[in-house]
Amino acid sequence: MFATLKFAALLLAVVVCWATQDYDYDDAEIDEEPTLGDSPYGSLWPLPQKVQISTVVFKLSGASFHIFDAKESSSGASCRLLQNAYRRYDEYIFTSSRKQGKNKSKKALSSDMSELQVWITSADSECDSYPSVTSDESYKLSVDSPVAVLKAPKVWGALRGLETFSQLVYKDEYGAKSINRTDIHDFPRFAHRGLLLDTSRHFLPIKVILANLEAMAWNKFNVFHWHIVDDPSFPYLSRTFPQLSQHGAYHPYTHVYTPSDVKMIIEFARLRGIRVVPEFDTPGHTQSWGKGQKDLLTPCYSGASPSGSFGPVNPMLNTTYDFMRMFFKEVSTVFPDAYVHLGGDEVDFSCWKSNPDIQKFMEQQGFGTDYSKLESFYIQRLLDIVTTINKGYMIWQEVFDNGVKLKSDTVVHVWMGNKVEEELQKVTEAGFTTILSAPWYLDYISYGQDWQKYYRAEPLSFKGTDAQKKLVIGGEACLWGEYVDATNLTPRLWPRASAVGERLWSDGDVRDLNDAYSRLAKHRCRMVQRGIPAEPLFTGYCAHEYKEV
Amino acid sequence: MFATLKFAALLLAVVVCWATQDYDYDDAEIDEEPTLGDSPYGSLWPLPQKVQISTVVFKLSGASFHIFDAKESSSGASCRLLQNAYRRYDEYIFTSSRKQGKNKSKKALSSDMSELQVWITSADSECDSYPSVTSDESYKLSVDSPVAVLKAPKVWGALRGLETFSQLVYKDEYGAKSINRTDIHDFPRFAHRGLLLDTSRHFLPIKVILANLEAMAWNKFNVFHWHIVDDPSFPYLSRTFPQLSQHGAYHPYTHVYTPSDVKMIIEFARLRGIRVVPEFDTPGHTQSWGKGQKDLLTPCYSGASPSGSFGPVNPMLNTTYDFMRMFFKEVSTVFPDAYVHLGGDEVDFSCWKSNPDIQKFMEQQGFGTDYSKLESFYIQRLLDIVTTINKGYMIWQEVFDNGVKLKSDTVVHVWMGNKVEEELQKVTEAGFTTILSAPWYLDYISYGQDWQKYYRAEPLSFKGTDAQKKLVIGGEACLWGEYVDATNLTPRLWPRASAVGERLWSDGDVRDLNDAYSRLAKHRCRMVQRGIPAEPLFTGYCAHEYKEV
Repeated sequence: MFATLKFAALLLAVVVCWATQDYDYDDAEIDEEPTLGDSPYGSLWPLPQKVQISTVVFKLSGASFHIFDAKESSSGASCRLLQNAYRRYDEYIFTSSRKQGKNKSKKALSSDMSELQVWITSADSECDSYPSVTSDESYKLSVDSPVAVLKAPKVWGALRGLETFSQLVYKDEYGAKSINRTDIHDFPRFAHRGLLLDTSRHFLPIKVILANLEAMAWNKFNVFHWHIVDDPSFPYLSRTFPQLSQHGAYHPYTHVYTPSDVKMIIEFARLRGIRVVPEFDTPGHTQSWGKGQKDLLTPCYSGASPSGSFGPVNPMLNTTYDFMRMFFKEVSTVFPDAYVHLGGDEVDFSCWKSNPDIQKFMEQQGFGTDYSKLESFYIQRLLDIVTTINKGYMIWQEVFDNGVKLKSDTVVHVWMGNKVEEELQKVTEAGFTTILSAPWYLDYISYGQDWQKYYRAEPLSFKGTDAQKKLVIGGEACLWGEYVDATNLTPRLWPRASAVGERLWSDGDVRDLNDAYSRLAKHRCRMVQRGIPAEPLFTGYCAHEYKEV
Repeated sequence: MFATLKFAALLLAVVVCWATQDYDYDDAEIDEEPTLGDSPYGSLWPLPQKVQISTVVFKLSGASFHIFDAKESSSGASCRLLQNAYRRYDEYIFTSSRKQGKNKSKKALSSDMSELQVWITSADSECDSYPSVTSDESYKLSVDSPVAVLKAPKVWGALRGLETFSQLVYKDEYGAKSINRTDIHDFPRFAHRGLLLDTSRHFLPIKVILANLEAMAWNKFNVFHWHIVDDPSFPYLSRTFPQLSQHGAYHPYTHVYTPSDVKMIIEFARLRGIRVVPEFDTPGHTQSWGKGQKDLLTPCYSGASPSGSFGPVNPMLNTTYDFMRMFFKEVSTVFPDAYVHLGGDEVDFSCWKSNPDIQKFMEQQGFGTDYSKLESFYIQRLLDIVTTINKGYMIWQEVFDNGVKLKSDTVVHVWMGNKVEEELQKVTEAGFTTILSAPWYLDYISYGQDWQKYYRAEPLSFKGTDAQKKLVIGGEACLWGEYVDATNLTPRLWPRASAVGERLWSDGDVRDLNDAYSRLAKHRCRMVQRGIPAEPLFTGYCAHEYKEV
């Protein structure tokens, strides 16, 4: 009732307004509770760049309404991506209300909306491509009777527009599916809108990953940053080095991602306009690698003899680089995205310091006692390897901070909580593109409405030229895995990540917390109705509560 | 693998020890991470009072093993409670491993454990009764070949012992169901081990309540404190006053508990030895009551005229008490438990102060400007009403603090976070029984292993005589509903509430965090395997990860 009656009520008002609101950002306390008023934008999330909603209402008959390719569209029935999307959104729009099946004989009334035409305007629809950081996600949606038209240069924009269209449909007070005459022109503010999931600290079953990719699409995210391996476990089943997961995974076959699992995840993501950027973090965070790959990690010493424990990747052995060359060669073929994330964060020097061979190597190289030089030595060689296999790379900010020479198309990932603006300033001053995660570590939980904190964060608030600001290509919400697995990941992520989704998609002036609360509360109920256990923002209810436990 | 291989490993060691450990309670920081060593007590949770586990191992064959009533038992096949429990525990023990059905022809090997005999020793098994605060939950469990014997005076102890038996069964390295020769003598440290769920701030579907009652039984909780109504909604469908939920629930039929729903919940709980204590909190926290019951709440004034909003229950009208008499008369018949929780917390005086009629009444009664006297006036009359309908009552601590005259069997519920020990001292000094919730507000979340904080809390650490300490009959974990509903309640509750479960059941000296961590990690994987999405304590894995999203 919440999502529908309230929305119906707003139709009594004249609602013609543009979404780019005046900047009226109240920097009040975080725990202040926005009131649940009605937004003139109903349940739209994230808010499109330009929205015009009229009071004229059309009905959608489950028996006659259909989504079709426009005749003029460059993309036809052979485009599996779009056909799958039509089916998906048809199901979302008519959840459980099309039980009697189609009834073609029913005549559409004049006030009915009988179809949504999807029109890909560019000659190359990119239907069979993978999305990339330069993909065009823009679309125009014109909802009118008897036909609504969704125009987009590429399939990526069509996917975003289908989601928006589905968010415009609501039930009137008699339960009839309704939609208002609406005009939308939409495009993302940032090109890179990512979500990091960590499958090393806890293994996430495929089903959980797919469900969250689906929810990402509802929130117009377009990058799944797959932090696939780390210290605790190595669930990636490598064809070249199968012993890595055989010995490094929590379990050699129940807790691994096989090549076909990975393929399925990438295709599922592609069909939703989502890139899959894998992260293979080195030289730190690699304990699990060492279990299957002899001599890869540095032996730590206790006094004059090896202690039996191991530290970061051993940077002084040629075998290390031979291994990395073969490993990343495989990675480059398994993951089609143009980028791979190479990590490079939080390298602990104590083990390197303890090892006499490393000490000798440091001397030979003239590094003195500056172990960050050794780290850079390793990373530099790794980057060169990845360059030769024609991949771009993303790295955590330390690699930049340590002065490693980076390719010009490197993406620097800013994550440290202190001096965020200074860091963005420095990175962009050096001419590198960057993405921001520092304000969006969703694994840190606290009592209350922390979505507001994520919502308020502003990636471009640092001092810099327009050229510098353009280098901020987006951000990522990170849900590190120490305390989440299949039991609690999904409700902990949604709708908290939705706040990040709007910040990265919508106009920078869209910051009204009351309006956001109203739309987000409805959006979260919609996610629940579509089967995702998105947790509540605050006291209240959904017409259709979550059906599972 | 986690739960089974590790446990198998411990069998190599000689494990004969008693559970009452030396007090060795390290009051270190909360975020310290206990190591995941192996506990000599395997996956037992909460730890029984006395446990002796030998290294001798028996096998349980799914084809031949059965749980039976002992010949000597006072309870037979007609005891539905026990027969249901046998079926439940058979399923837990042989989850998905008894696919081929029974095979009676298979001959049991000499090292097999062929049956568990359940022997109710008291003449009255209490099979058809409701559990109460004086119920005997003790049991003795002797696991030997070919027969294990579970002796308990009453069915309540048998239920606890069946859970313990199921926790002793593990898979050996070949996947064979195994159990060690074991002797256990067990009984609860505290008689009242409760969990509060709030169905007003968010409506909880029956399914969610039942699932959590099930999980309560696994953790030996025995009181479901049902905070059924509050300000935001009134989901209790009253036969006498149906308009209360009709107007006060979030939705008049999708978001209510019908009489048959309530009955089902009470019976489901009874079959697991769990009391259902409903809370109808007055005079504050009653906004939703006012929607269906005219003149029940105090009209607030803005200057000289009513503002249109309402405050606490109106204490000056006789109609208020007529209503309460009829309402609680119904409650007393619907809920069989000897106690009802009457609330009495957080009464806001501002509305009373604004109302000229209330001001006049205060004058007449000689209360001056002390509105806590008015509150006490109301509560006193309410308590008298409830006494006449032969119910005991529980109340939040403010009622005691305000000096209201209480029946001697009143249970004072201590919840305020400050001066907890002083409060316990005062309440018990006055001779009242009390339960503690202050350290166990599970709705407050924070990053990290907060279960340790709940685990460390000690209900008897206040200064007082032995007689005073005996008046502390237990405690309750509270999960208030502002931020939880069906989407996130269960993983937020378990295994955090399990920490409270052990604190209230096990000996006071059981405080070793490392041992607890090891057992609790396995216990949480067991809950996951039984279908409850209990969240992880920290990095790691379960052999069988949660199967849903």
